[in-house]
Amino acid sequence: MEKSKILLDHGGGGRLSRDLISAMMLPAFDNPILARMDDGAQLEIDGRRMAFSTDGYVVDPIFFPGGDIGSLAVYGTVNDIAMCGAVPLYLSAGLIIEEGFPAADLEKIIKSMGLAAQTAGVSVVTGDTKVVPRGAADKIFIHTSGIGLIPEGVHVGAHLARPGDRIILSGAIADHGMTILAQRQSLGFDGPLTSDSAPLNHMVQAMLAASKEIHVLRDPTRGGVGTALNEIALSSTIGIRIIEKRIPIQKSVRALCEILGFDPLYVANEGKLLAFAPPDQAAAVLAAIRTHPLGRDAVVIGEVVDDHPGIVVLETLIGGERIIDMPLGEQLPRIC
Amino acid sequence: MEKSKILLDHGGGGRLSRDLISAMMLPAFDNPILARMDDGAQLEIDGRRMAFSTDGYVVDPIFFPGGDIGSLAVYGTVNDIAMCGAVPLYLSAGLIIEEGFPAADLEKIIKSMGLAAQTAGVSVVTGDTKVVPRGAADKIFIHTSGIGLIPEGVHVGAHLARPGDRIILSGAIADHGMTILAQRQSLGFDGPLTSDSAPLNHMVQAMLAASKEIHVLRDPTRGGVGTALNEIALSSTIGIRIIEKRIPIQKSVRALCEILGFDPLYVANEGKLLAFAPPDQAAAVLAAIRTHPLGRDAVVIGEVVDDHPGIVVLETLIGGERIIDMPLGEQLPRIC
Repeated sequence: MEKSKILLDHGGGGRLSRDLISAMMLPAFDNPILARMDDGAQLEIDGRRMAFSTDGYVVDPIFFPGGDIGSLAVYGTVNDIAMCGAVPLYLSAGLIIEEGFPAADLEKIIKSMGLAAQTAGVSVVTGDTKVVPRGAADKIFIHTSGIGLIPEGVHVGAHLARPGDRIILSGAIADHGMTILAQRQSLGFDGPLTSDSAPLNHMVQAMLAASKEIHVLRDPTRGGVGTALNEIALSSTIGIRIIEKRIPIQKSVRALCEILGFDPLYVANEGKLLAFAPPDQAAAVLAAIRTHPLGRDAVVIGEVVDDHPGIVVLETLIGGERIIDMPLGEQLPRIC
Repeated sequence: MEKSKILLDHGGGGRLSRDLISAMMLPAFDNPILARMDDGAQLEIDGRRMAFSTDGYVVDPIFFPGGDIGSLAVYGTVNDIAMCGAVPLYLSAGLIIEEGFPAADLEKIIKSMGLAAQTAGVSVVTGDTKVVPRGAADKIFIHTSGIGLIPEGVHVGAHLARPGDRIILSGAIADHGMTILAQRQSLGFDGPLTSDSAPLNHMVQAMLAASKEIHVLRDPTRGGVGTALNEIALSSTIGIRIIEKRIPIQKSVRALCEILGFDPLYVANEGKLLAFAPPDQAAAVLAAIRTHPLGRDAVVIGEVVDDHPGIVVLETLIGGERIIDMPLGEQLPRIC
């Protein structure tokens, strides 16, 4: 890629992101933990199994129905830790602020981060603030990192899906992405749309209390459910079959997707998860999710198959089949 | 601050940074670990004492004599962890890249991060890449976070300085700041100037092997030695006296400071540390530092006194006294 330039899609969480990581990051940082390409790293420190994750938030607009860049940054990293099967404990927050940014907006964001941390039950224990000259950044960017503890007996990872696993989706898809899009385009569509941004850690703990045999947990953020399933199919070298009619989606979100030609399977979520559990555990896990307010609409959307390793197949509404490919990047820049 | 705007100095690591943290972050994130306002957080997780730190890097230019934004981001966080008395183990890296950034430059930066991690003996185990549209960020920003393990018997913190403590400085000051300035201004002065950017963790381990009774460790980055000493004086409610003629500074750096009217005590360092040790341990600590290549020029520059708590006093070259105040911010934006 020597003479080439970095494109928006290199940061989109899809195929170009994966290529960039494979071409540059993995050789340079050469270690087996990073090589797993999970959302969070699973470490052993002095005999304790821990999860460690980081994410950058550049969402535009910074305030939107259902959240803001602050709560998104807290919940996003809390969720990445939870998707390792870990109990998130501590967060760091790094801010890059454009000179001239209104102090009142910053205060609103910081308060929102504080409230989000309280809701998720984590502490923001360290941070850093940089201010760059006007024009060197757009308003505010936030990086959060998090640490969590993985309970004994929990072994979750994108590489652990097994044929027969049922695939549970915790609720309706594409809310976050279409909310941000509606805001940005001033579509007048923003009334009924709200981001699903929420902390999933308590729900994950309820699920793991029901069964420790969950194989994979993944929150389908950038790139949506379609991208997340592709990552899992690749990491586990298994095939995935999902059934379109089972995938919950709100009417208003579906309508906006149709009008604008977006495939909701590739639209970002910020408060949903996918869980893979063996057939004899799936019912218990599903029941546990459904007892949680964020998982009331949870359903089994498909399963892991022996065939077509690395490929995700959708059974369409009209009974046909369609390959859900990994997209090149994210359809919307600055979605999170 | 409701109607006010965020200024460059709010991110400068000086008084305005401290005010911002006190006014917004501490109330919102309300916890005793953050309230210590150390560079890194000291945590207890499941019986293990750990350090956790994050820093954002926005340095301009991104390549400079002695380093680049990549190695700086690795060493900076490694050093923050080391300044907790901890052995740094794992790092995360979050990139925000401007669309159109040359892929070759990114590769150079990533390779530099990989080499820096190897040099410091840490692993970059998780990361995130966001790309924002052209003009929404200036080239590249990097956040690194790190985790380290604090050995038994080590208790280091800015609040632990005690009267009588000797203050050790590991080498010449102001190299990093003046190197960046010379680059940015194209002063033609850049020949002899090189950033001191380096990992201090191995040196810290040698120091702690010589004596576990080190009270404070601090790397004087943004805001320089002057700001770091003020932070320690405030946190420990003690007075500090330092002796100007003992403070090492390279000729070329001093010359540039004089020409441009910069006080080297407030200029950023990226490979130096301050250590506070009780009188009966200082010689052993100093000897240990000096055995390390990065600490060959280490000296005792002063001590902690009972008088004037919160105040740093400099004994000047001509035998007078001067209060070294905490500056409002950093003299140079985007120094790190």
